Amino acid sequence: MMKRKMTWMSLGLLVLNVAAGQTEDLRTDSALVREVFSEVLAHGEAHENLRVLCKDIGHRLSGSRSADRAIAWGQAMMDQYGADTSYIMPVTVPAWTRGDVAEASATGADGRVMPLHITALGGSVPTPEEGWIEGPLLVVRQLDALDTLDARGHIVLFNRPMDPLLINTGAAYGGAFDQRGGGASAAAKAGAIGVLVRSLTHALDTLPHTGSLRYNADIPRIPAAAISTVDASALSQASKAATSPLTVRMRMNCVDLGTAEQGNVIGEWRGSERPDEIITLGGHLDSWDIGEGAHDDGSGVVHTLEALRALKAVGYTPQRTMRFVLFINEENGNRGGKKYAQVAAEEHLEGLRHVAAMESDAGGFVPRGVRMDALDSGVELVRSWAATLEPYNLHYFGRGGAGVDIGPLKELEPRPLLMGLVPDGQRYFDLHHSSQDVWENVHKRELELGAATCASMLLLLDRNLPTD
Amino acid sequence: MMKRKMTWMSLGLLVLNVAAGQTEDLRTDSALVREVFSEVLAHGEAHENLRVLCKDIGHRLSGSRSADRAIAWGQAMMDQYGADTSYIMPVTVPAWTRGDVAEASATGADGRVMPLHITALGGSVPTPEEGWIEGPLLVVRQLDALDTLDARGHIVLFNRPMDPLLINTGAAYGGAFDQRGGGASAAAKAGAIGVLVRSLTHALDTLPHTGSLRYNADIPRIPAAAISTVDASALSQASKAATSPLTVRMRMNCVDLGTAEQGNVIGEWRGSERPDEIITLGGHLDSWDIGEGAHDDGSGVVHTLEALRALKAVGYTPQRTMRFVLFINEENGNRGGKKYAQVAAEEHLEGLRHVAAMESDAGGFVPRGVRMDALDSGVELVRSWAATLEPYNLHYFGRGGAGVDIGPLKELEPRPLLMGLVPDGQRYFDLHHSSQDVWENVHKRELELGAATCASMLLLLDRNLPTD
Repeated sequence: MMKRKMTWMSLGLLVLNVAAGQTEDLRTDSALVREVFSEVLAHGEAHENLRVLCKDIGHRLSGSRSADRAIAWGQAMMDQYGADTSYIMPVTVPAWTRGDVAEASATGADGRVMPLHITALGGSVPTPEEGWIEGPLLVVRQLDALDTLDARGHIVLFNRPMDPLLINTGAAYGGAFDQRGGGASAAAKAGAIGVLVRSLTHALDTLPHTGSLRYNADIPRIPAAAISTVDASALSQASKAATSPLTVRMRMNCVDLGTAEQGNVIGEWRGSERPDEIITLGGHLDSWDIGEGAHDDGSGVVHTLEALRALKAVGYTPQRTMRFVLFINEENGNRGGKKYAQVAAEEHLEGLRHVAAMESDAGGFVPRGVRMDALDSGVELVRSWAATLEPYNLHYFGRGGAGVDIGPLKELEPRPLLMGLVPDGQRYFDLHHSSQDVWENVHKRELELGAATCASMLLLLDRNLPTD
Repeated sequence: MMKRKMTWMSLGLLVLNVAAGQTEDLRTDSALVREVFSEVLAHGEAHENLRVLCKDIGHRLSGSRSADRAIAWGQAMMDQYGADTSYIMPVTVPAWTRGDVAEASATGADGRVMPLHITALGGSVPTPEEGWIEGPLLVVRQLDALDTLDARGHIVLFNRPMDPLLINTGAAYGGAFDQRGGGASAAAKAGAIGVLVRSLTHALDTLPHTGSLRYNADIPRIPAAAISTVDASALSQASKAATSPLTVRMRMNCVDLGTAEQGNVIGEWRGSERPDEIITLGGHLDSWDIGEGAHDDGSGVVHTLEALRALKAVGYTPQRTMRFVLFINEENGNRGGKKYAQVAAEEHLEGLRHVAAMESDAGGFVPRGVRMDALDSGVELVRSWAATLEPYNLHYFGRGGAGVDIGPLKELEPRPLLMGLVPDGQRYFDLHHSSQDVWENVHKRELELGAATCASMLLLLDRNLPTD
């Protein structure tokens, strides 16, 4: 049951427009945004919902049983929070399991053994059935360094750190990402038998951070693992100091299980005036299978649900149709986002038009603003709300990618206004894709401020997008 | 020894201005700010300095032996980082110790005993030599509620939470502060024998958060303690449910030791062109005696030291004199700040003029901008740097108090431009004045970004303040 928390003041401002036969909301944008923030900060359920998702359901990799449970829970929450309709949009997703073995060590010429903290990169093939692979270590910092090196029989360590000088940690992540995404095939092409990739984080610790890799066609698939930053630095230093190469051995028993049928969870709230225009808000329900996917992207999931709850609670009536979407398979395939865009393109032909979409997939930290992937007119529109959003410390309105899941919607014509929530990013990659991305590491008020920002953006879009 | 880290590029841009016989720095504001951020992010020593201050020295309440050690360390760091001169400005500070006993419990009519987590408020008198005081509990939310209540023989709990609806946690703190600052005297005036004050934090946990109180003259001084939010809420609920008042007992053995001679640590870097104009940057060296004073205000201390180090490292030559100040006694008397302003007023008469000052005393979290206490012309000047500071996610340039320590400088004529660093505040009061304000809870990059912001503000002030 939807809990009604509309205040008498809110009700008093819903004035009947007799001529049009409709209720008209006379509250200003600023007043509504204030009500949304107050509702979320005073009665917010995002933090408790995140606890349920992280602790009762747990991590939820595409294709897993727990992802099935998360989908059922997500749909139930859409219903509980008063969506007019809820449904699952079917998506065929990859199924892969990490297994229970991921071990590696390095041995010097003096016989000294360094145990290494590793975990399989998502989608990696296992080591052969005999178990261990073993070879001399080759440390490189760039993929193209392998163009001129003979890596035959070697285990390659990609050890280029994220650039600490970039203020935006996401940009630093992007600048180091090629090692994880393409390192395995680049190394295999040069003859390597296995790959270790320095974890994509500024933190110096012993946690391996997983993430997806991409095997190129026509190149042998070799086992690939993330290695902690402390181990990567130590290996690199030991390698430089050694007169003969260190020997690395590793074993992993991950398994490719083919595909599974899962889906995007969708809750729809029909618009009162322009029901054929759609504004979407979403995050992704799947997560990596270590930690609990609390920031990535449990936060986006509960931001999405809380936006629905809070807009209902303050008595908002959307003019356009709002879609609340929990995407599947962002982490290792983005098949949920692609399927959603494909369906949106079909709906377009039927007159159902996506006019705007927002994604929350950058963590549950304190929000700084939004990043826009839009036409100039859309960017200007959002920037015109700066004064309305300033009291909530929302100051950032830059251009850039809005998110992996909604990104494919930009191919629609006319192009929808896409935006991504921008929480502060300094701590994000400390936890990202690691065992420490757990509920305890999400701050209640910061999470709530993000949810209120998403809800506010939805209503500002709904009230201010041009009508053509 | 000052480590020279000036780059060859920096040196190349220091062009000899032959006509004036001086070196002129041809780097733009933007280029210098970029160099400062890169220096701090790549070679920063703030995080390690904070470890030394928190772990090797520890907490450092005014008048304590560890505050003496912190003062000696602070001056040594000023010398190490290349201050032209360093000295201690003598300040007489209060000396008070918490003692080793702070216990309380509440007993219901059914004999059930609730142990309570308390700690003395700073400056509290102890309970009498016999030890325990005991009385019926009286729960209030406002000081003025006691105007019409008979509190004789009672122990009063002030239980008004910080307002969760305020986005600015500092404002929420300010709105609840009267209970801690003035609760003891208000309760004593109504006849109470002891006081418990709900800890000033949004966090719901079992940590008491200390802080200073102020006894009014002519009103009996009664023992006053902070109580954790969980205990305060539980006591209040139990009190409402009970048919007869709960009985509270408490004991504390804090001791007033009179005064001690300590001082502000000052490092001075003489200006090359206008040495009689002073720009000050500071934080406070003293801390509360639980936790380690890591955010409050170890962060401000290492921000200040790092600003000196980084400006030297990038080869900056100040036009005006820069003063790096580690204030004493911010927490329980502000005698360091007042003394500094008194000396500044005397210097004014001698032609040494404070033109600007900046304070860092709001934690080591990610910086959002600065708050200004200045004439319109000063506010406009700082806002004109918005584009220069935008790449570092510095967007906030509001008006308000600049800080407790530099605040008294606003009485100078002409009025200096005062500003306070504004880090994100959502997590600050979770830790503030509690046992959890420790080094481990300060994030390295966030701390560094704050230090680079302070250093950048110093150089922007130095290069852009009007010359009259």
